[in-house]
Amino acid sequence: MNRREVSKIIGLGAAVSLLAKAQQSTQTNHPMPATPENIVMLIYPGMTALDLIGPQQVFGYLMGAKVHLVWKNKDIVVSDTGIGIRPTITFAECPETVDILFAPGGGTGTISAMQDRDVLDFFRQRGKTAKYVTSVCTGSLILATAGLLRGYKATSHWSARNELALFGAEPVAKRVVEDRNRITAGGITSGIDFAIRIAAKLRGEEYAQAMELTLEYDPQPPFHSGNPETAPKPVVAMMTAMYAPLITSIRDIAARTAKERG
Amino acid sequence: MNRREVSKIIGLGAAVSLLAKAQQSTQTNHPMPATPENIVMLIYPGMTALDLIGPQQVFGYLMGAKVHLVWKNKDIVVSDTGIGIRPTITFAECPETVDILFAPGGGTGTISAMQDRDVLDFFRQRGKTAKYVTSVCTGSLILATAGLLRGYKATSHWSARNELALFGAEPVAKRVVEDRNRITAGGITSGIDFAIRIAAKLRGEEYAQAMELTLEYDPQPPFHSGNPETAPKPVVAMMTAMYAPLITSIRDIAARTAKERG
Repeated sequence: MNRREVSKIIGLGAAVSLLAKAQQSTQTNHPMPATPENIVMLIYPGMTALDLIGPQQVFGYLMGAKVHLVWKNKDIVVSDTGIGIRPTITFAECPETVDILFAPGGGTGTISAMQDRDVLDFFRQRGKTAKYVTSVCTGSLILATAGLLRGYKATSHWSARNELALFGAEPVAKRVVEDRNRITAGGITSGIDFAIRIAAKLRGEEYAQAMELTLEYDPQPPFHSGNPETAPKPVVAMMTAMYAPLITSIRDIAARTAKERG
Repeated sequence: MNRREVSKIIGLGAAVSLLAKAQQSTQTNHPMPATPENIVMLIYPGMTALDLIGPQQVFGYLMGAKVHLVWKNKDIVVSDTGIGIRPTITFAECPETVDILFAPGGGTGTISAMQDRDVLDFFRQRGKTAKYVTSVCTGSLILATAGLLRGYKATSHWSARNELALFGAEPVAKRVVEDRNRITAGGITSGIDFAIRIAAKLRGEEYAQAMELTLEYDPQPPFHSGNPETAPKPVVAMMTAMYAPLITSIRDIAARTAKERG
């Protein structure tokens, strides 16, 4: 990666000075990688765009890493709120060496992805050797259906978290759950917390703190409604009812998956 | 908008029950709009994708609203971290009636947008009549260059906030700043706080709380580094140095803009 490319990626001006600082940093021991890390992020129709873009914004600022958006072809993929995003590579073009394998969540689009043989084959294959196998929101259910969370602690969107047990995972009610090389995050916005933690792993704390400052991640949620423990009960009831058909679909897939394993 | 479209937009299953609940809600007095609101979000090369997608995820879940991604043509727009996003309308196709006019920020891409006559003309024109004129991050500098923040309190990314004064705005160090119909938000992630507040304005508190729960917006930043007051001093110094060329460009544009006004 040359200076011009670095500058383009950071998109915020004189990136080169940050790069130099990070490399010189004596506080941490995370030099730039000798070869760029491959961060491979699945995209698919009906995914929740914020599940993807929260982490991608951090990964994209991670100098020395290469971020790929992978799908079965190069057609524009449309998110659950109508954002059309272009894949950068196909499953066939994906590098063999994957440092971070990532699945975003969604609603009915995720249910489809959980039943898509190409998606599952890809995750089974790359999941064997990827350095980290990761997800945000219901993306963990794609990992689970591919058999990648059996025997692992994991999390998901609050509404679907307990369903992970049906796939042999151990659900944990935390925003980011790390078990060996599996790192799963909770609902939608938790992808930001997740990605800053990954930045700390790959580049050290100072770099991750710089990311947090760049993102101005000093959140002030307008309500106290961000998890089912604190949200008003009628709101939780409304959303739980809304997600019910989705949960039924997940259970059906879990039953079929268990049957296929025999 | 028919049931099928609503269901597609929410992307999370039985949206219709939420719609019905929201309409019946006696707690708030925000019925669904008689005609869909037009939410018009600028996209442009080099923008910061998370500035856009944070709010878009909320607006896209706002049943009864129509979200447009506007650019000068329909070519894929590439963000500062390489996300290729498809515009849905051109400036020429944009509805006359705009409920929310929105500009995301970025780095050098934003500097270009601030000097793009098509962008400025579009904002000047639609900014006159839009119900709300809004931004996230350095998007406020696009509004400011178009003359839309003169005499208004406003905010921006922490690194560029004070520069708003050069365009006749009054910088305020808050995550979301509201002055009459101008609503500007701070750096990148503040767009999520911003959008939930907009949801409350348009659909009432209960609906906005449901959005916050859907997003699982119960943030746990890994560090205390999300604003320059709390971040470690060397990290602030590093990022301030990194942003310096960008600030110089902003000042140059401000000087030229002031001269052109005479």
